Amino acid sequence: MQHLPQTVPERSRRVDAPLGDLAARYVAVRATTLRLAEPLSDEDCQVQSMPDASPTKWHLAHLTWFFETFVLEPLESDFKAFDPRFRVLFNSYYQGVGEQHPRAQRGLISRPSLTTVKRYRAQVDERMQALMARAAAAGTLDAGLRNLVVLGLHHEQQHQELLLTDIKHVLSFGAPSATESMAYAKRWPIGAVQAQALRWFAHAGGLFELGHDPALDGDFCFDNETPRHRAYIAPFELASRPVNHGEFLAFIEDGGYRRPELWLAMGWAWVNEGPEGTPRQSPLYWQRRDGVWFTHTLQGTVEIDPHTPVCHLSYFEADAYARWAGARLPTEGEWELAARQLGPRALQRAHFADRGAFHPLPPITDARDGQVQMHGDVWEWTQSNYNPYPGYRPLPGAVGEYNGKFMCNQFVLRGGSCATPAGHVRASYRNFFPPEAQWQFSGLRLARDMDA
Amino acid sequence: MQHLPQTVPERSRRVDAPLGDLAARYVAVRATTLRLAEPLSDEDCQVQSMPDASPTKWHLAHLTWFFETFVLEPLESDFKAFDPRFRVLFNSYYQGVGEQHPRAQRGLISRPSLTTVKRYRAQVDERMQALMARAAAAGTLDAGLRNLVVLGLHHEQQHQELLLTDIKHVLSFGAPSATESMAYAKRWPIGAVQAQALRWFAHAGGLFELGHDPALDGDFCFDNETPRHRAYIAPFELASRPVNHGEFLAFIEDGGYRRPELWLAMGWAWVNEGPEGTPRQSPLYWQRRDGVWFTHTLQGTVEIDPHTPVCHLSYFEADAYARWAGARLPTEGEWELAARQLGPRALQRAHFADRGAFHPLPPITDARDGQVQMHGDVWEWTQSNYNPYPGYRPLPGAVGEYNGKFMCNQFVLRGGSCATPAGHVRASYRNFFPPEAQWQFSGLRLARDMDA
Amino acid sequence: MQHLPQTVPERSRRVDAPLGDLAARYVAVRATTLRLAEPLSDEDCQVQSMPDASPTKWHLAHLTWFFETFVLEPLESDFKAFDPRFRVLFNSYYQGVGEQHPRAQRGLISRPSLTTVKRYRAQVDERMQALMARAAAAGTLDAGLRNLVVLGLHHEQQHQELLLTDIKHVLSFGAPSATESMAYAKRWPIGAVQAQALRWFAHAGGLFELGHDPALDGDFCFDNETPRHRAYIAPFELASRPVNHGEFLAFIEDGGYRRPELWLAMGWAWVNEGPEGTPRQSPLYWQRRDGVWFTHTLQGTVEIDPHTPVCHLSYFEADAYARWAGARLPTEGEWELAARQLGPRALQRAHFADRGAFHPLPPITDARDGQVQMHGDVWEWTQSNYNPYPGYRPLPGAVGEYNGKFMCNQFVLRGGSCATPAGHVRASYRNFFPPEAQWQFSGLRLARDMDA
Amino acid sequence: MQHLPQTVPERSRRVDAPLGDLAARYVAVRATTLRLAEPLSDEDCQVQSMPDASPTKWHLAHLTWFFETFVLEPLESDFKAFDPRFRVLFNSYYQGVGEQHPRAQRGLISRPSLTTVKRYRAQVDERMQALMARAAAAGTLDAGLRNLVVLGLHHEQQHQELLLTDIKHVLSFGAPSATESMAYAKRWPIGAVQAQALRWFAHAGGLFELGHDPALDGDFCFDNETPRHRAYIAPFELASRPVNHGEFLAFIEDGGYRRPELWLAMGWAWVNEGPEGTPRQSPLYWQRRDGVWFTHTLQGTVEIDPHTPVCHLSYFEADAYARWAGARLPTEGEWELAARQLGPRALQRAHFADRGAFHPLPPITDARDGQVQMHGDVWEWTQSNYNPYPGYRPLPGAVGEYNGKFMCNQFVLRGGSCATPAGHVRASYRNFFPPEAQWQFSGLRLARDMDA
Repeated sequence: MQHLPQTVPERSRRVDAPLGDLAARYVAVRATTLRLAEPLSDEDCQVQSMPDASPTKWHLAHLTWFFETFVLEPLESDFKAFDPRFRVLFNSYYQGVGEQHPRAQRGLISRPSLTTVKRYRAQVDERMQALMARAAAAGTLDAGLRNLVVLGLHHEQQHQELLLTDIKHVLSFGAPSATESMAYAKRWPIGAVQAQALRWFAHAGGLFELGHDPALDGDFCFDNETPRHRAYIAPFELASRPVNHGEFLAFIEDGGYRRPELWLAMGWAWVNEGPEGTPRQSPLYWQRRDGVWFTHTLQGTVEIDPHTPVCHLSYFEADAYARWAGARLPTEGEWELAARQLGPRALQRAHFADRGAFHPLPPITDARDGQVQMHGDVWEWTQSNYNPYPGYRPLPGAVGEYNGKFMCNQFVLRGGSCATPAGHVRASYRNFFPPEAQWQFSGLRLARDMDA
Repeated sequence: MQHLPQTVPERSRRVDAPLGDLAARYVAVRATTLRLAEPLSDEDCQVQSMPDASPTKWHLAHLTWFFETFVLEPLESDFKAFDPRFRVLFNSYYQGVGEQHPRAQRGLISRPSLTTVKRYRAQVDERMQALMARAAAAGTLDAGLRNLVVLGLHHEQQHQELLLTDIKHVLSFGAPSATESMAYAKRWPIGAVQAQALRWFAHAGGLFELGHDPALDGDFCFDNETPRHRAYIAPFELASRPVNHGEFLAFIEDGGYRRPELWLAMGWAWVNEGPEGTPRQSPLYWQRRDGVWFTHTLQGTVEIDPHTPVCHLSYFEADAYARWAGARLPTEGEWELAARQLGPRALQRAHFADRGAFHPLPPITDARDGQVQMHGDVWEWTQSNYNPYPGYRPLPGAVGEYNGKFMCNQFVLRGGSCATPAGHVRASYRNFFPPEAQWQFSGLRLARDMDA
Repeated sequence: MQHLPQTVPERSRRVDAPLGDLAARYVAVRATTLRLAEPLSDEDCQVQSMPDASPTKWHLAHLTWFFETFVLEPLESDFKAFDPRFRVLFNSYYQGVGEQHPRAQRGLISRPSLTTVKRYRAQVDERMQALMARAAAAGTLDAGLRNLVVLGLHHEQQHQELLLTDIKHVLSFGAPSATESMAYAKRWPIGAVQAQALRWFAHAGGLFELGHDPALDGDFCFDNETPRHRAYIAPFELASRPVNHGEFLAFIEDGGYRRPELWLAMGWAWVNEGPEGTPRQSPLYWQRRDGVWFTHTLQGTVEIDPHTPVCHLSYFEADAYARWAGARLPTEGEWELAARQLGPRALQRAHFADRGAFHPLPPITDARDGQVQMHGDVWEWTQSNYNPYPGYRPLPGAVGEYNGKFMCNQFVLRGGSCATPAGHVRASYRNFFPPEAQWQFSGLRLARDMDA
Repeated sequence: MQHLPQTVPERSRRVDAPLGDLAARYVAVRATTLRLAEPLSDEDCQVQSMPDASPTKWHLAHLTWFFETFVLEPLESDFKAFDPRFRVLFNSYYQGVGEQHPRAQRGLISRPSLTTVKRYRAQVDERMQALMARAAAAGTLDAGLRNLVVLGLHHEQQHQELLLTDIKHVLSFGAPSATESMAYAKRWPIGAVQAQALRWFAHAGGLFELGHDPALDGDFCFDNETPRHRAYIAPFELASRPVNHGEFLAFIEDGGYRRPELWLAMGWAWVNEGPEGTPRQSPLYWQRRDGVWFTHTLQGTVEIDPHTPVCHLSYFEADAYARWAGARLPTEGEWELAARQLGPRALQRAHFADRGAFHPLPPITDARDGQVQMHGDVWEWTQSNYNPYPGYRPLPGAVGEYNGKFMCNQFVLRGGSCATPAGHVRASYRNFFPPEAQWQFSGLRLARDMDA
């Protein structure tokens, strides 16, 4: 998720929301980030395990940099940077803000320390609250400022998920000692569960409006969800639930990783070059011991549970599985259409990060009236490239300067995962990653064409 | 163009076409390939200048391998391979046929010699003619065989274009001596021309059928053009002609290669890593001497003519130019819609490889009634990813085994170029390359949203 | 310094040394290591800035692993590993001990924490003391055990130097904040100094005995210093002191980094490929601001002092400088011969790490009677490859298993540096690094042939 | 062999040699080169199979470039380059002559053609003969000119060997057809032979003069063989003949490629990274089919003959074998000492390229009076780094400009091989390659220390 291509759509601007709500929400979201970092030592927070992932400390600093740079700097009359060098160190990719510390070297920043970064957060938080209060008092807490703060909080939530997936990757390299565990969390969330058969739901297709709808999705969205636009969708069927670990094991046992006809050409190359030159034979984090498959989780190494949604798949793996299963990945339009039809309860009952499980759970109820687990548990790869919607336009200005610059060689994922903060996603939400990315909680749901 | 994802659509099967036509067409297409290789020495034909390109000799052999493997082998009762080792040497990427000689090592195949490869071609051609004659006599020259031959001939034409673009790349490394020139062809095709202003044509949009239509496009198509399907297209405007060299020079002079805000993030990285670590500052093959821009062509090095369509652009460059120009790339649906409206004359009058110019020419007539140069001169990058059409299905069987396996991280180009064989393309034709590819005759035509 | 090819020569075994000395020395050396790590935060100790360097925490653990694996494991009757996983995590390169955690991923080991590593040290230290006491009481504190302990302490000292050079490299990437400095130490050690002219001393040459001599060098040595052997050395001259920063600046200003005729072919390639594709134009850590040269030191960034020995040179730079100066690098035989002639005072008065300066100092006294600064300040590159001495034989057994396995593509450095523990080196001591290594305190002293 | 560090020692200059000899020798050496290229097609001559190897066509042109650049250009009064662009294209690495075409892109030079390169050779040969004749007539055929010509002819001979080893590498990639073979030569040189037991010869050691001696070695030498200098050599033993294929097979079967304790650390890494990520398990060109070992030769693929000297070993393999055999590689001083003692007949009876076998042959006679096969058959790796002799000085001027610039990270090989032109080598001759190089005819002879 080479982020952050978000902007604030015109139509979502409301000037009448009370200050109290915004200030409280600011406190809550910012506190959640710190709470997520709590189980980690200073050293855990320091490590960068690959160029795509960032150290926890860097996340904590960058999120504060965002408010300092995009809110405080233009709006504080006596603005003074906490530390002028942070402008470069914690700039992710904003060319308009200036130079950036090299992405692959974020793990080398031993100084500032985590303690200093926490002081940085505290100071900026105080100044943010003061700024909002002053603005409210002066009657200038308008849409511009409010939306910027809300954007910063959604940005913060995106990184909360990255913090979890990045630290999961770090901990996959560490080694436990007698007294320390390489787990992030303690309690394993899953008890014994029953299998749930896969069912198919038919969708008639037709001409639809897709993209963010404030009436359904709430005021806020990222600019990549706009504009709402018309699209024709052919009739299709969608699976009742995501593919689970047991089904994916059957794919492996059927020689899935050794049959080129199941893979995209790039995917087959990716399988064979593997890490350290060994061909891949399972998703990320899996290992086989004495014929039993285990996986690394945020609770440490556990045996694989066949009834839970499979995750840590690349697009290549999701696509190959679908071909093996005689199906295909859905388009993002199909996914959105189906999600809309489920109504708001699908989102409300979903399994997100607030549950603290940090691992996909089995479906709670049998899917009788429609798909289950559309939101939460695992992000679902779609066959859609991350492209601009028709009529999409980059907005002017600092935050929006680079909207759309990541719309190349990435695929859209939908729905949210067990590591996504509750309240962060919606039916129109578009996540995106390159096809080889595996370290997110990424799985799939099957689709197929309707027989004519 | 990691090819060959073609299959034969059911609906194009006709059993009544006379043998004579097919046999004559076979002779003509095969002869054209050899004629294209004629100006080249044995050594020119040997060289592979990068992994993406193939030696001319390899092209000549692979095209023959195609007929030997997919037609003769299953249909000759006493089939005997010309040389059993060619099965591996000249297999491009057909996993179902077995192993492949490593792509990046095609230039190391000094043996068989070019002479042997030509004998290989002659022998297979004789056997193909005999096979077709026998089938006609026996009444078994049915759709299956005919379509396979036609497919092989379209395959041959695709490689005719690659042969030209690959050898152009090779000759950009060679150095002329006093008596030998690194040019492929002699005569420079362009005389003095007048500027032609860019105009815009409006298209109303609506719900359309896209994809191959036998009634309009002829019987044959590749499977990626199918199935014909419905799509909604919003109103848009399309430029009267491709962007020309003069316009692209203005982009360069305006700092186009030094302004990150004009580029996709991947494009900006691509600009800065450049070949041999030097940031790029122009399209492929350009060089500046004493303030004047020159370019390598198949006729050798020439000064750039501002009135001809710009080519050898990557997707990144086409996309950045469009942003700089306040426009965007068209989608492939928009392009196809506009091409359909021009009728068959647009295709008939286009500038293809049969003209022998091998370089984009200026527009002949002013665009009054519609876009000009939609076909020929330069392939036009679209913003559409190379994805399966809704309802697309891989066909069973040998040739079609890998349809669609290249549908990842590539963008569609439309229209054909000055190196495309006449008669090879149509309005529904989809070419595709990764966004960094530059060595094709790839340019762009601007599009923009209709003001609401 | 891909270490540790050391063993204990037979002739240095003494069984009569009292326990007290050994135990006290153990305490002192081990305490010094911890003291060196004291100025560093947990995060500083975590970072690995390149594959060749190790995190401080890893050094601390590996040094303890050495005693646990090579002393406690074979000699403790009730041996129980502190943590069985450390066997792999902190094994540097001993194939005989088993697998090793990948070298380039030492910085990913966030667990065990630094706190745990310090507990590991404390526990092993207690057990070592108990073991030595028990052995002394039982009369089994023989040469075998003693020498193993002494070897471990010399090993520890080698890593004390690496700890300093590695952390210097780490801190070159970090960025200071308002309140934290990227310096390791506080006080800058150098005051105003006078230039000292370079003089030459003639050496007559002849047939000599080279290598470790217990009578001169003390009992202990690494096995690469043995056996003492005969060699013929031609007459030569050696410079009075190391090349200083001012002289090296003159080389730079004379175009030293732009003149291929001054460099080895490999060196010239190394100059031009540079870090991130930019040709090198100065030693490691240097930067020029407004025409003034600065360098990163363990005290932070300081202006370069022309009168101090130049350091952080690769072999390529040392060799090129010598060629530019009309001289050459000495052989290690020449260096050893000259060092021997100075007698023990040269070693006693040298500037080592105990001084706490961690930066080369100017020569204290003028060189009247012989070379100064042969020991300490900067390691001196010789033109000698790191090869086995005639008659060198790998010793049997665990510790000595891999003696000599690094004797390939490395050059010998002599003398010790400002980061070498006092008491660690001697005239026969051979340090070694590949020719491109720069992050040690490596400089040079000129030699030249005697005019016949 | 990143060559050509040769110069002409002062003492070898003789002005009295008649023109006829020189002119005839010129004709003979030049003709030999062309004859070696005769079995090859234009396409064979075009291919570059790795950056370290050059196309045959490039060798042919470069050798002519040498005479044109270093002899004709300074001495022809009306000098005019055959083609000014060849100055860059065929300059190997002479920075003083100017830029060089990138080494790894020599295979991309399709033009000039082989035919043109042969015209280039013919024209320069004519001019060379005319120049020599004019000089003889004018009495100016002095040592300067003569030595330059002789140097060029020795340079030519070095490349004759490289031409053979490079084309052998090319042909290992090609694939034979029914009528063409990937062999270079026709007849297999080896008949049935008897085993010859390995014996040891003792050498007493002492103080010796090493390096080129005109009285023993003839007038000519490369500058790296000078100056003659004194060295002390300890007593040693040397094996009667090179290690043969059968002995090396025993090493393989004893797990030689799987036992880290036998290898240098760099060698072990080299074994394990292997080509395409597969660990190495045999020398270059070997392959096992149904339990039988075959090897690629210039005569095509043949079964391995146990009684012939093993070749295509890297230094790492030679070193590991010696360790496994309880011996070591000789130093180059030891080798030279032993070779001197054999007298001139050892050189005269050796098996060089003029025999046309191009593969190491079994020893003809049993070794009774001294080592056999010291010269010819296979180059013998020594443990000596390619370093300057004491007192070695780079000579001034064009040809000698870069003497010694390759003296880094290479090891010396001695003796010559079955691909070395007869008359090219001598007892003082030093060949050199990096430790990983395998594509030369490189083997080894065991040495061991004399028991004290």
